[in-house]
Amino acid sequence: MKLYEKIADDIDAAVRRGVFAAGERIPSVRQASQQYGVSIKTVLHAYGLLESRGIVETRPQSGYFVREQARTDATRDHTGPVPVVASEVDVSRLVLSTLRSIRTNAAMPLGSPYPDPTLFPWRRINQYANAIARRHTSWNLIDDLPPGNPELIRQIARRYAENGVPVDPDDIIITVGATEAINLSLQAIAKPGDTVAVESPTYYAMLHAIERMGMRALEVPTHPVDGIDIDALEALIGKQKIAACMVMPNFQNPLGFQMPDANKKRLVELLAAHEIPAIENDVYHELYFGDSRPTTLKNYDTKGLVLHCASFSKSLTASYRIGWAMPGRYREQVEKLKFLNTLTTPSVPQVAVADYLRQDGYDRHLRHVRKVYRQQARLMTAMVQRFFPSGTRTSAPQGGYVLWVELPENVDSMRLYQAALARGITIGPGYMFSTRNAFHHYIRLNYSYPWTAQTENALKTLGELVARMA
Amino acid sequence: MKLYEKIADDIDAAVRRGVFAAGERIPSVRQASQQYGVSIKTVLHAYGLLESRGIVETRPQSGYFVREQARTDATRDHTGPVPVVASEVDVSRLVLSTLRSIRTNAAMPLGSPYPDPTLFPWRRINQYANAIARRHTSWNLIDDLPPGNPELIRQIARRYAENGVPVDPDDIIITVGATEAINLSLQAIAKPGDTVAVESPTYYAMLHAIERMGMRALEVPTHPVDGIDIDALEALIGKQKIAACMVMPNFQNPLGFQMPDANKKRLVELLAAHEIPAIENDVYHELYFGDSRPTTLKNYDTKGLVLHCASFSKSLTASYRIGWAMPGRYREQVEKLKFLNTLTTPSVPQVAVADYLRQDGYDRHLRHVRKVYRQQARLMTAMVQRFFPSGTRTSAPQGGYVLWVELPENVDSMRLYQAALARGITIGPGYMFSTRNAFHHYIRLNYSYPWTAQTENALKTLGELVARMA
Repeated sequence: MKLYEKIADDIDAAVRRGVFAAGERIPSVRQASQQYGVSIKTVLHAYGLLESRGIVETRPQSGYFVREQARTDATRDHTGPVPVVASEVDVSRLVLSTLRSIRTNAAMPLGSPYPDPTLFPWRRINQYANAIARRHTSWNLIDDLPPGNPELIRQIARRYAENGVPVDPDDIIITVGATEAINLSLQAIAKPGDTVAVESPTYYAMLHAIERMGMRALEVPTHPVDGIDIDALEALIGKQKIAACMVMPNFQNPLGFQMPDANKKRLVELLAAHEIPAIENDVYHELYFGDSRPTTLKNYDTKGLVLHCASFSKSLTASYRIGWAMPGRYREQVEKLKFLNTLTTPSVPQVAVADYLRQDGYDRHLRHVRKVYRQQARLMTAMVQRFFPSGTRTSAPQGGYVLWVELPENVDSMRLYQAALARGITIGPGYMFSTRNAFHHYIRLNYSYPWTAQTENALKTLGELVARMA
Repeated sequence: MKLYEKIADDIDAAVRRGVFAAGERIPSVRQASQQYGVSIKTVLHAYGLLESRGIVETRPQSGYFVREQARTDATRDHTGPVPVVASEVDVSRLVLSTLRSIRTNAAMPLGSPYPDPTLFPWRRINQYANAIARRHTSWNLIDDLPPGNPELIRQIARRYAENGVPVDPDDIIITVGATEAINLSLQAIAKPGDTVAVESPTYYAMLHAIERMGMRALEVPTHPVDGIDIDALEALIGKQKIAACMVMPNFQNPLGFQMPDANKKRLVELLAAHEIPAIENDVYHELYFGDSRPTTLKNYDTKGLVLHCASFSKSLTASYRIGWAMPGRYREQVEKLKFLNTLTTPSVPQVAVADYLRQDGYDRHLRHVRKVYRQQARLMTAMVQRFFPSGTRTSAPQGGYVLWVELPENVDSMRLYQAALARGITIGPGYMFSTRNAFHHYIRLNYSYPWTAQTENALKTLGELVARMA
């Protein structure tokens, strides 16, 4: 191949891939000549070839532009097929696939793990971000190195203190969402090959964190009202070495329970007696349906063995990605790991959230959200009971925005997922919540989205599909 | 202890820690009564005790507030002592310590690894961020799941294409800075216990990434002009199993070289012949002093074995934390690991950078920055030659913003670091760039900051300290 042909082919490929869009300028002749180390003449030759292929056109005094009619490849899809039978299931691949199908089939996102973003005070928070940007002439990265922005840390500590959880601001480390907080916490307390006890069913982010680190998940039976079975856990501790325990005591995803205080206390004491650290995922803490914020494992932690992880992603803003860890006696390790993992969390989002917390109506916003979720939890429960066949059972969420639904045993949630997807409805198949395929006939439904006639129609359609499969 | 005393002590502690600041309201009596599960009377008793201790005061109709004179603990310092002798050195701890001393001794940050933030087009980028926030009524996290925001990805691909690096947008994955890109890339290609070849001296972020994964760094001699010694690397490959190679071919930190094209090509071919993947850290690619953007290893990568990592943190905005990976044949693994590590990169910063790249004067900004850095590189080199004793040698940076200085052999850079710090000057001690203590008499100096009489005085002071130690 001649050199000018190679240059033409390079640019042709870039246009097909959408790198240079219709109407956009391609590199100038001088630029291309310098870049490819060839003569102006060679570039002109290449560009002439592109013109004759109908890919670019010249505009007087301006250079070469991609023609509006230039061919581009159809948008490629990385989704890949969603596994259909249980044996193929790779939890994180399945989760990514379902998330992508929510993106492209946004019609009825009952399978979404995220809260409806339209309930977030998006404009207010962005106003703070804008004000911060205007106040400063530049921003020094060094100011917000781990543990993070001091004012944000103080505001977080203050909310805990107001809710009866005594927290030292020095114990808090800001992270990129609770996802990073959980990953860093796990890395601080366990190593590849170690066994980590988790709830079953468990939120798949927990399984991801364990998978990512090359550790082994030990699934402990979990009661839909009382939480992890402490007797079962105690028996397992007696039989094998458990490096850590990961739980979600408040409004667990997918079960929605609020672990009773007595159980929280007993769990902390059991683990402390065996010097087993606990990672507490408390991302739903603000979304309670009761009268006040529930306690956390941290309330009962006298030995610094609880690594408490949380975020604003479920209650205030998901796209800002602000989370935090309170790692107890593992503070130094987690801070260092944060530094190694992502250096620092973006600055303006941190300060914007701090300003919002200090000056705005977070509590008013939360009261509204809690009311909406409580109502919609009731509505969805009623609709499932109405439209789904007998043999269907639902959880009784005490907070959060997901309902866990047990279907008749012979209904495969992955087949249901596929059939629902064909009708523009997504659901969370039970396969995502265990590596043991223990929940093949369960699904998770998100009730945070605005309740409309379509929601009811979708639940009706789902109920019909389930009835047909049962 | 009585219950009311415990409540008083909790709030007392929170005030000391700064959780409730002077003039701020403490939880209302009703709130505290609910939270602690005690009677209103008990809370009133507790708050009375706090009043008598002089910690809070009542304001009619408003509640209890922290008094302006309330005692608080002195700001605590987590820095910890910086290790003084080589045997104590833990690279990441040392780096964190030096960064913190820059924060608190900002007078003359010659030891900073970051570019002067005042050169960034802070206001312009934030204007785009603000416009995006105003255009939307909410933001759906799902839209920017890995690989990331499509328009940002296209803009990044376009810059590569304009500079003769053919890139498929589908190959790009957005990350939280290059730090995350490098970590994910390394995790995709090597496992704990594996050996990873690195340059020596090497940028410590590389050593961090390796340390974090429980891998072993194999330091390969690196020439201050030609880059990594390919003969030496070849010999090592013949002798032991090397899982990956991490290099910084353009304007390596700390040496500042631009690896010649012939060497880049030979390095890629050598590694390809042994099927060894290469992580290319190209964060300084826009900061060249020559006529055009240098080539990358990716230009010579025919087998998809180069995992190219870069970011906008050195050239456009550090606090937005936008980086990316082009992982070649490891794309799927890196995308999945990104999802597991931090779920997604904050959305508005991604789109703001994309809008800036499409609509604003990035090239004009870069031309200015390059000119400033080129001038200041010359100035600092001249000043070091003038003020430092004989036996001192400097690198000849071809881009970037750091100078590598070899001091007389008997000067210990850690002792110099301590002595300089006492005079309000930070430097980058050579210990940070190796785990073998190979560079105890080297230092790294940052020349990105505005050049003033203080800069010259600081270099003069450093020269005197070195002369005294030599």
